[in-house]
Amino acid sequence: MLHDLMTWRYATKTYDATRTIPADKLDAILEAIRLAPTSSGTQPFEVFVVTNPEVKKNLGLMGMNQAAVDNASHVLVFASWDTYTDARIDDVLAANEAARGPSEIASNYFTMLKGAYVPRDPKVNAEHAARQAYIALGFAMLAAAEQQVDATPMEGFNPAEADKTLDLAAKGLKSQVILALGYRGEGDWLEKAPKVRKPASALFHTVA
Amino acid sequence: MLHDLMTWRYATKTYDATRTIPADKLDAILEAIRLAPTSSGTQPFEVFVVTNPEVKKNLGLMGMNQAAVDNASHVLVFASWDTYTDARIDDVLAANEAARGPSEIASNYFTMLKGAYVPRDPKVNAEHAARQAYIALGFAMLAAAEQQVDATPMEGFNPAEADKTLDLAAKGLKSQVILALGYRGEGDWLEKAPKVRKPASALFHTVA
Repeated sequence: MLHDLMTWRYATKTYDATRTIPADKLDAILEAIRLAPTSSGTQPFEVFVVTNPEVKKNLGLMGMNQAAVDNASHVLVFASWDTYTDARIDDVLAANEAARGPSEIASNYFTMLKGAYVPRDPKVNAEHAARQAYIALGFAMLAAAEQQVDATPMEGFNPAEADKTLDLAAKGLKSQVILALGYRGEGDWLEKAPKVRKPASALFHTVA
Repeated sequence: MLHDLMTWRYATKTYDATRTIPADKLDAILEAIRLAPTSSGTQPFEVFVVTNPEVKKNLGLMGMNQAAVDNASHVLVFASWDTYTDARIDDVLAANEAARGPSEIASNYFTMLKGAYVPRDPKVNAEHAARQAYIALGFAMLAAAEQQVDATPMEGFNPAEADKTLDLAAKGLKSQVILALGYRGEGDWLEKAPKVRKPASALFHTVA
């Protein structure tokens, strides 16, 4: 089943501007992002769900990405934490204890985590947080496929422009990757192209 | 369906050392990694499928991760490219043309990509490659759940030790994340614990 989703999806290049994703399908995609696992359960990112045409124009999209985004139904901007802070990790612990009850093990674990993460170079922390967003990005792409919603992951944009448009610096966030969502339009050259993937022999090594 | 997989899975802490993943289930998990989308289709990582007990002992695993890995059936070490090179990107273009036929558009695109990536700081390239591996990590976790195979993503290891054990520097690779695979053992405290996730209101912002 998952295999069918993985082969159905492709990085859609042309969207049908007349079609909008129904709310229940969008919710299913966002729920997959919410449920995606992240390092120590920190979920170190927020997602901006953009439909505003003016905002779409000011995300710094490069080349053909702008037209795709203009015609897409919804655009998700994944923005991850610029660093780890005591307050952010305390919130994670609080959510943990709210769900599972007070726990000395959890409390000690997150105290250890604060000691390890907070003093680190913010750039290292920002990269670590961005990686977690990529797990959620993958989950979102599969959830979109399950809803028969097309999707296009995009790194081709100017993060500084997106950050400015969404006022991310003030929120302690950095835009990392964009996912356009909608319905494929007529004449998308990539729709019928064979998927290109390396053979298993080039990717996997058995260490038995 | 995907939602069921996302709620079934959890970061398994205790494995049953007596159970081994059948080959067809392992293959389904690896196929999900192979089909995962990556930036410009570069698939900038390789995965080491470890069952050797000595090698498991020398991945630099921290704390309780060592016991989990010792009892897990298979351990995947995701190792991503240390940088982008002309040769690596030429290989991607060759695979593209082998699948889709010669293409001036593709040729021009990957020439542009080489110009953008190859001169960059190798650290920036290594981080970019690592992010792609995290998409595949997410796909692998969902594919494992579909096969009713338990999985544990692990960043708690010493990459330098794993790199040395698997001779990754000579291959131009860096270990980034580990995924233990197998079957949950008795008395895993996390198995019955409620999943902890932030509410949608804390993660999503509508920009309409």
